[in-house]
Amino acid sequence: MTADKNGFFISLEGGEGAGKSTQNKRIVEWLQVRGKTVVETREPGGTPVSEQVRQLLLDTRNAGLNPTAELLLMFAARSQLVQEVIGPALDAGHVVVCDRFADASFAYQGGGRELGAATVAQVEKIVLQGLRPDLTLLFDVPVELGMRRVAGRGAADRFENETLAFFERVRNAYLERAAAHPDRFHIIDASGNEEQVWRQVETILEGEPRL
Amino acid sequence: MTADKNGFFISLEGGEGAGKSTQNKRIVEWLQVRGKTVVETREPGGTPVSEQVRQLLLDTRNAGLNPTAELLLMFAARSQLVQEVIGPALDAGHVVVCDRFADASFAYQGGGRELGAATVAQVEKIVLQGLRPDLTLLFDVPVELGMRRVAGRGAADRFENETLAFFERVRNAYLERAAAHPDRFHIIDASGNEEQVWRQVETILEGEPRL
Repeated sequence: MTADKNGFFISLEGGEGAGKSTQNKRIVEWLQVRGKTVVETREPGGTPVSEQVRQLLLDTRNAGLNPTAELLLMFAARSQLVQEVIGPALDAGHVVVCDRFADASFAYQGGGRELGAATVAQVEKIVLQGLRPDLTLLFDVPVELGMRRVAGRGAADRFENETLAFFERVRNAYLERAAAHPDRFHIIDASGNEEQVWRQVETILEGEPRL
Repeated sequence: MTADKNGFFISLEGGEGAGKSTQNKRIVEWLQVRGKTVVETREPGGTPVSEQVRQLLLDTRNAGLNPTAELLLMFAARSQLVQEVIGPALDAGHVVVCDRFADASFAYQGGGRELGAATVAQVEKIVLQGLRPDLTLLFDVPVELGMRRVAGRGAADRFENETLAFFERVRNAYLERAAAHPDRFHIIDASGNEEQVWRQVETILEGEPRL
């Protein structure tokens, strides 16, 4: 499967506390105002099976889950999401806005869990067969600032319990991924306030001739 | 990880109604009588995380699960089982008896779901890094006979709901797998009664110098 030329696939990436959710809402609104049909989804999850996998992945009782199993579970959920949601939406000519996609596996499992990009790329190829977002917005924020922002959010999940060093590896892997795919990646400085971040996002959306 | 020379890894394979469970008990008994420490396990499952994945895989409500996602879930459960149970048992010099292992993915997802052996082999390599059973007993039975045997067992799971054609592909893929790995595979004619099948199994075990 490859992204249909009629549809458009946007992924939002970034570590904890990058403000993705807030910007996500504004992006969807921006698209809807322009008459686009937007299909919003998130990873891991977005289908009944994928949400079951999500529960398993985020459950703090599964602290012993090994990195390879985590990678396979992420891509299992992703495979189902592509088949049931993303693929059909693109085929129908819609705009898909996905909170995290395969780049997140390069960042979290490849970088954070130190499986390496080559292993993630092998699984990506088997599962996605070349499907990539058309546009990826990387909300980049220094790790300590991001962690300060999420500190008050309540019970942490299995990922949010990770160390500072883990999130530094995630951030670095994201930045490497952006450098390797400059055609679709835009790095957004997410350390400012909502309006400062949105102005960067809006400029990118307005500069995108396919939207 | 590779199988430690001190330990010994036996996998039992076969389709529905091949009588694996009954023979499994007798194999474990045969080994224990000879003073072996036996670690018995099953797939998918055998660890807390893997049993959660098993629930998801067997649940008939997840009928829409796609073949690639199914393959990744199987190997996620397997990765965790190897790390937590099989690897440590082999390192400790024990005999592992596992009800199904990676060959089952070649049969069920590669053959039954028609993903093909090459795709399964790629995931196998990433996850198992060369770990293979020392001895694989394939309990082979004509599909119709196997299905007749399990017909009275009560509520069918997501796999047991499959068609005759699916199980024919599973059986053929198992036989191909056996032909490709004659060093460790033994095909057992499981169409006879318990004693007839056990005599074949016992002969193989008695002929195994590493046990």
